[in-house]
Amino acid sequence: MLVVTEPDPELPPPPMELIPSDVTVVEVGATPTDEQLTGAQVLYIWDHRFAELGPLLRRAPDVRWVHAASVGVNRLLCPELAAVTLTNSRGVFDIPIAEWVIGAVLSHVKGLDASLALQREHRWQYRTTGRLAGTRAAVVGTGSIGRTIAERLVRLDVDITLVGRAAREDPQFGSVRASTELASVTADVDLLVLAAPLTPATTALVGAEVLRALGPRGFLVNVGRGPTVVETDLVVALHSGTIAGAALDVFEVEPLPAESPLWSIPNVLVSPHMSGDYVGFEVDMVRVFTDNLGRWLRGEPLHNIVDPALGYVPN
Amino acid sequence: MLVVTEPDPELPPPPMELIPSDVTVVEVGATPTDEQLTGAQVLYIWDHRFAELGPLLRRAPDVRWVHAASVGVNRLLCPELAAVTLTNSRGVFDIPIAEWVIGAVLSHVKGLDASLALQREHRWQYRTTGRLAGTRAAVVGTGSIGRTIAERLVRLDVDITLVGRAAREDPQFGSVRASTELASVTADVDLLVLAAPLTPATTALVGAEVLRALGPRGFLVNVGRGPTVVETDLVVALHSGTIAGAALDVFEVEPLPAESPLWSIPNVLVSPHMSGDYVGFEVDMVRVFTDNLGRWLRGEPLHNIVDPALGYVPN
Repeated sequence: MLVVTEPDPELPPPPMELIPSDVTVVEVGATPTDEQLTGAQVLYIWDHRFAELGPLLRRAPDVRWVHAASVGVNRLLCPELAAVTLTNSRGVFDIPIAEWVIGAVLSHVKGLDASLALQREHRWQYRTTGRLAGTRAAVVGTGSIGRTIAERLVRLDVDITLVGRAAREDPQFGSVRASTELASVTADVDLLVLAAPLTPATTALVGAEVLRALGPRGFLVNVGRGPTVVETDLVVALHSGTIAGAALDVFEVEPLPAESPLWSIPNVLVSPHMSGDYVGFEVDMVRVFTDNLGRWLRGEPLHNIVDPALGYVPN
Repeated sequence: MLVVTEPDPELPPPPMELIPSDVTVVEVGATPTDEQLTGAQVLYIWDHRFAELGPLLRRAPDVRWVHAASVGVNRLLCPELAAVTLTNSRGVFDIPIAEWVIGAVLSHVKGLDASLALQREHRWQYRTTGRLAGTRAAVVGTGSIGRTIAERLVRLDVDITLVGRAAREDPQFGSVRASTELASVTADVDLLVLAAPLTPATTALVGAEVLRALGPRGFLVNVGRGPTVVETDLVVALHSGTIAGAALDVFEVEPLPAESPLWSIPNVLVSPHMSGDYVGFEVDMVRVFTDNLGRWLRGEPLHNIVDPALGYVPN
């Protein structure tokens, strides 16, 4: 028996008909009854804002597997996961997020955002702009999203430094630098892309020091999790020209409060946590789950198992 | 002796100090005196809006080589070129223009332009958007700019059809389709990119029929020359939803008149003919010229020779 949390009303409805018909599916709200949870072996967290997994697991003692319809699982981590397998939807958003990053960076580098602003005033104002090829970028996050972003930036002739939890050799990028060295890594790049899971090590990783290192021609992109950036430091850095601009898809508080200064700072793109969400992604999300459900029913090892101590799927 | 037309005041000043000091340089305005032209063997057209080459060549009988600080040379073509070698600045803008195209396309596909518009109202409005990888594009123009755009779109997993003057085999892309078949080529693609020189065959190439073929989910990009598109047909197609949107860096009349409807149609980017012009391009432009000047002084064959009958550098 499978219990599915109520889909986020903001998202397209998931195609639950992809789940085999011999699996009993019970759809529950944020506070399901004990009766609904009785006998449930699998829990599918569709709502990516779901934040009460611990109390729910205590009332559902038969659950052995929790699957998250998201890549980031920071809201789900709880001690109760010690007795349960947690999987996520790694892979679905890799290329779409990389395309968002490339679009946002080129919009800044090529002045498309400024052209749109001039266009509103019917102003033809010729300028020269920057180039992406030949620039240097640091990508924080060595999971499949960070690697796909890095790999596609390499395709556009950007020189990449990958940053992760610990310094190590890397078969794809030569080496990974430790996030503890982020300020010194950032001093050498034009572009800093954050695609990291939210962990103690990545919380408030980017503050005044890293932003100073990024410098007045540097551009920040965050497609990971909001609290990786100290937003008050970012606002100061943007206002004072410490960095050139930012493209942000995630924020400390979401939705971004209407009174946030980020909405109206020039050279800042505010995007409502949608960089990876493409038309039809809900179908691919459910497919990731049903693939794993097949493995579960056949007694095979699951894919995309999250290490709850790390907070992400180890490579 | 070298005669250089007055630099366009809109552009950064060219670094003429790169020209060898034993070459006499005379800078002239749009209507140079006979005295200024006497003895000139080389003419360097810096101003890309220069349009009076024929009358000028008749008054400068010693000129044997005209170099254009541009890639498009449609304004310079005249019968007087029959006795003169014409070269252009092919290559300088290839990657910068390709980056503009990718940025403009991703801005549309990933909804960055719409996010910027919502941002002005401090509105957090989640949406799902499109994907670039796996889409199909036709690129009109088989010169170095068209090929670089096509090649970089391929790097981002876009399926490419190259369109040129005549159907033929192509070592890089397998084949080139003829521009006379453009409507049927366009019916099969999501994205139509124009990077063609202005010739009789490319004038008004994209009108109502091609736009209908591009279809309501199709996107048009023009980085070539404005008159390749029938602007009145484009305005109708955009207003009526015949196509989804357009990113335009060139127009029938430039600067685009303030009363043009293109300025304010949703899903249209108006850019002031700057897609290739990066900070420092004027230095690279003069280097293209001085490289050729060295060949000229040593009696070697010049690079980037334009075929005046075609209006561009043949491959």
